[in-house]
Amino acid sequence: MSLNVYLSGEIHTDWRAEIMAACDGLDVTFDAPVTDHGASDDCGVAIMGAEPDKFWHDNKGAKLNAIRTRKGIAEADVVVVRFGEKYRQWNAAFDAGYAAALGKSVIVMHGPDHQHALKEVDAAALAVTETPQQVAQILRYVLTGALPG
Amino acid sequence: MSLNVYLSGEIHTDWRAEIMAACDGLDVTFDAPVTDHGASDDCGVAIMGAEPDKFWHDNKGAKLNAIRTRKGIAEADVVVVRFGEKYRQWNAAFDAGYAAALGKSVIVMHGPDHQHALKEVDAAALAVTETPQQVAQILRYVLTGALPG
Amino acid sequence: MSLNVYLSGEIHTDWRAEIMAACDGLDVTFDAPVTDHGASDDCGVAIMGAEPDKFWHDNKGAKLNAIRTRKGIAEADVVVVRFGEKYRQWNAAFDAGYAAALGKSVIVMHGPDHQHALKEVDAAALAVTETPQQVAQILRYVLTGALPG
Amino acid sequence: MSLNVYLSGEIHTDWRAEIMAACDGLDVTFDAPVTDHGASDDCGVAIMGAEPDKFWHDNKGAKLNAIRTRKGIAEADVVVVRFGEKYRQWNAAFDAGYAAALGKSVIVMHGPDHQHALKEVDAAALAVTETPQQVAQILRYVLTGALPG
Amino acid sequence: MSLNVYLSGEIHTDWRAEIMAACDGLDVTFDAPVTDHGASDDCGVAIMGAEPDKFWHDNKGAKLNAIRTRKGIAEADVVVVRFGEKYRQWNAAFDAGYAAALGKSVIVMHGPDHQHALKEVDAAALAVTETPQQVAQILRYVLTGALPG
Amino acid sequence: MSLNVYLSGEIHTDWRAEIMAACDGLDVTFDAPVTDHGASDDCGVAIMGAEPDKFWHDNKGAKLNAIRTRKGIAEADVVVVRFGEKYRQWNAAFDAGYAAALGKSVIVMHGPDHQHALKEVDAAALAVTETPQQVAQILRYVLTGALPG
Amino acid sequence: MSLNVYLSGEIHTDWRAEIMAACDGLDVTFDAPVTDHGASDDCGVAIMGAEPDKFWHDNKGAKLNAIRTRKGIAEADVVVVRFGEKYRQWNAAFDAGYAAALGKSVIVMHGPDHQHALKEVDAAALAVTETPQQVAQILRYVLTGALPG
Amino acid sequence: MSLNVYLSGEIHTDWRAEIMAACDGLDVTFDAPVTDHGASDDCGVAIMGAEPDKFWHDNKGAKLNAIRTRKGIAEADVVVVRFGEKYRQWNAAFDAGYAAALGKSVIVMHGPDHQHALKEVDAAALAVTETPQQVAQILRYVLTGALPG
Repeated sequence: MSLNVYLSGEIHTDWRAEIMAACDGLDVTFDAPVTDHGASDDCGVAIMGAEPDKFWHDNKGAKLNAIRTRKGIAEADVVVVRFGEKYRQWNAAFDAGYAAALGKSVIVMHGPDHQHALKEVDAAALAVTETPQQVAQILRYVLTGALPG
Repeated sequence: MSLNVYLSGEIHTDWRAEIMAACDGLDVTFDAPVTDHGASDDCGVAIMGAEPDKFWHDNKGAKLNAIRTRKGIAEADVVVVRFGEKYRQWNAAFDAGYAAALGKSVIVMHGPDHQHALKEVDAAALAVTETPQQVAQILRYVLTGALPG
Repeated sequence: MSLNVYLSGEIHTDWRAEIMAACDGLDVTFDAPVTDHGASDDCGVAIMGAEPDKFWHDNKGAKLNAIRTRKGIAEADVVVVRFGEKYRQWNAAFDAGYAAALGKSVIVMHGPDHQHALKEVDAAALAVTETPQQVAQILRYVLTGALPG
Repeated sequence: MSLNVYLSGEIHTDWRAEIMAACDGLDVTFDAPVTDHGASDDCGVAIMGAEPDKFWHDNKGAKLNAIRTRKGIAEADVVVVRFGEKYRQWNAAFDAGYAAALGKSVIVMHGPDHQHALKEVDAAALAVTETPQQVAQILRYVLTGALPG
Repeated sequence: MSLNVYLSGEIHTDWRAEIMAACDGLDVTFDAPVTDHGASDDCGVAIMGAEPDKFWHDNKGAKLNAIRTRKGIAEADVVVVRFGEKYRQWNAAFDAGYAAALGKSVIVMHGPDHQHALKEVDAAALAVTETPQQVAQILRYVLTGALPG
Repeated sequence: MSLNVYLSGEIHTDWRAEIMAACDGLDVTFDAPVTDHGASDDCGVAIMGAEPDKFWHDNKGAKLNAIRTRKGIAEADVVVVRFGEKYRQWNAAFDAGYAAALGKSVIVMHGPDHQHALKEVDAAALAVTETPQQVAQILRYVLTGALPG
Repeated sequence: MSLNVYLSGEIHTDWRAEIMAACDGLDVTFDAPVTDHGASDDCGVAIMGAEPDKFWHDNKGAKLNAIRTRKGIAEADVVVVRFGEKYRQWNAAFDAGYAAALGKSVIVMHGPDHQHALKEVDAAALAVTETPQQVAQILRYVLTGALPG
Repeated sequence: MSLNVYLSGEIHTDWRAEIMAACDGLDVTFDAPVTDHGASDDCGVAIMGAEPDKFWHDNKGAKLNAIRTRKGIAEADVVVVRFGEKYRQWNAAFDAGYAAALGKSVIVMHGPDHQHALKEVDAAALAVTETPQQVAQILRYVLTGALPG
């Protein structure tokens, strides 16, 4: 068994790298959105021309990013959605809903402060975690049956 | 033509009633989540027994509410998602993603302050609005071809 | 909102009638398998001719019953699966898996003795209950937002 | 032609190894659940933290195992479901229903004692067998056209 | 429970009328192809203009009939396919395959002479019958639980 | 049998009215896009605010119209696509492709001048017609088996 | 581009070998049913035990063969269905219907004698041919754009 | 991440080659229709025999080409649709609708003259471009996150 895993959500800490490092040796393929905040915001106008209205500036970019996100989620067996400490992160919740509707196995990762606000997202998940290590342990268990320690 | 419309999102203002009133005479059926905040939070334990751990208290309730939400979105032709001024509202974004993945026509409603943070949600929508009147005008146009004024 | 509910599983107690009675006044349509044990076992040979081999006797009947079961589950918004005290009840677990794969909202009903053995079935459900009253309270809450008491 | 085969059900005898050995040389890929009973029961709490309530202990574990089961069944061309002599084995019947609803080719394996109780599961299968050798002979025939003896 | 039943196949005997008569009082809706052989053969050219080549004459007609057949099968819960004594009846077998691929409950009706030649069709069915009475008894049992006699 | 028919394409002649009149007495429900050219072009900005850039002016309107088009095609059994004498009519061809991908029965209506240019669209259709009378005759035949004259 | 092609139907002439030979050098993978008539008829009882009743003898075998047929059609881009001079060949027509319902590209191959009887099958096909060479020329054209001669 | 890209539409300029050249080094697989205009028009009759009627001449060819088009779009993650300066190009719009209905990410490419006439197609796209370089930049960004210059 091998797994395709899409790592959605927060882009300001190195949680993706931590999961990947902790999955060393496993038969997992990881995908993720573009995590360069500036490029992600401006990609649409950079390629297809400037927009004076911020709404359309953002709209052009968000649609380009959607090409990658849709592909990543559609190909994934497991979608990990990380909610960080900052920002609204509505796109993370959107991805979680999108993945749930497609029947993907969803793993949510967030701190205890967000527990109540994320209860609907957590209820659609097969695992609710707090750390990259837990996510990696889950992927290792799913693939090999091995538990930590 | 008739439309089933699911009204997702913010539950602390009367935007649903405003849309419904402004759609008077149209062949529209509206559904919505339970909008009694207390009942929505406690429904799981009220029916299936108390949980000492808040996580499971919330989990039991969120799953009950999911029975209604899934049905409402699955039956909908149009899903309207309202983001208000307060709270995280991750469940609204989750519903938007869920509806988008099912190919539903999504209408988003939010104020200009949330424009940048909601760009991915807006990019998946067929209309981005600010007021209940605009949503009602859209439904009226879709059903009858009549424009305001 | 209205609900189609399929009542799967145990056929030797009157739990179905209890749920229906407790849902009086709600916009719910109930379906269920044929609950006459003898008719359910012998329907195939009674209509299409006797079989000397018990396997084919059962096979003919099980396939006829599948016409009804498939229709009932396919049309359902909610599938309630009851595990009773007696018998293997593998068909109940089969129906639960079938319903889960179709994305139906599953409610399981069983006593505490079966908790560990049913953990995979319970994990696929949106609600785990013990009594017909709880099931009816869930349906009432989903449809009206009203909680017991 | 090659086949992906998921081996679901009983985990206390070596039937999986017997099938695999008897399929030597065939273009078959096998998957299966985690068959370490203890790990399978405790994986959830081992990774995501202890639960005082046995229901949630089991729930956390069953959901982790579901990540593997769903992937295995979704990728399978053929799902073999083995019912052994002991335990309730409701998860085996659940997997059979899940696989049937997805249109997978189901092969059931059980002794004659369970014939009547498994009639609904058998009726959804393309083959009902008693031994690992029969399963392997079926896979060999499907892939090569060769019959035993 | 109600049933939509599509009656496919042989058009030269009155088996459809016999089934309908024997289902008197049941909540069943029947559909069927156009059973006027001449109209069915010539409908395409009668409406859209003559074709000198018999292949295109037939092609135009077969496509018109497909509008009705597809609709009838798509809406059906149960597809009954009757193989008579005469003609090739490949369209009956085609309909059976089409219905099976859509997951419809298939009931086949044919005499014992065709048993071996129809084994693949029979193997995809939930019931194999010989008479209209048996089909009606099946529909009655599925809807009401009542067995003949 | 009843039919839902979506009438897509050209909006400058009265072909829709002719079909509807000629289907008098049949169990057909017709849907169509908004056929007021001005309203169709300007609906987006009329409801959601002016756009200085013509591209976004059109984009807002086209998305609103898509709510109606998607619903109409999704509910249709038959999609009739009319190509007239004037304009590019790419939206008509787009609707034809959209309908074909969903497995809808497509009827195309156009004059002989467009035959070569529409060969891919015609090849995806179950009927190619030139007049509203032919479309109505097809619908009448499909529903009743009656041929003209 | 590469193609998976399933070769369904007549098993008493070497048409499959002719197509494969004529496709030499193309990126095509061919699958087909078991073409050993005896093995195909007896596979069920040879592996799972004798049946005194011919119906069940055939039923067991037809179901085993269905494992291969379903896999072959599900994986195919193109399904070629050959109708020969002899036998009823209802399984060929069944496969054609099955493939059509799944949206596969169907190529039919038969002599002119069967033209009228196969009009419904031909109407569901993207190509109607008479010889293995024509089928191979089609596959070559689809993959490379090269036409014969 | 890798991408399958189908290049649909205009066949009289070298835009496909320009995109492919500009994507050098990226993990992209390109497919396209047969771009030899003569072969594309005549393939049907060249292989399956002449037709005196131009409609059927075209019909035979268009269906052969549909085998390739359907496969190309079905396998694609991204469908690029180019509208050139000449011809009706209804097949391009048809492909765009087909791709949109399957949920593919659509990129449209056309000059400013066609903006209004293509508004419905553009509204279904995730990107609207004018040059092959823009398309290549989008694919590069989606795969690597790198923006031009």
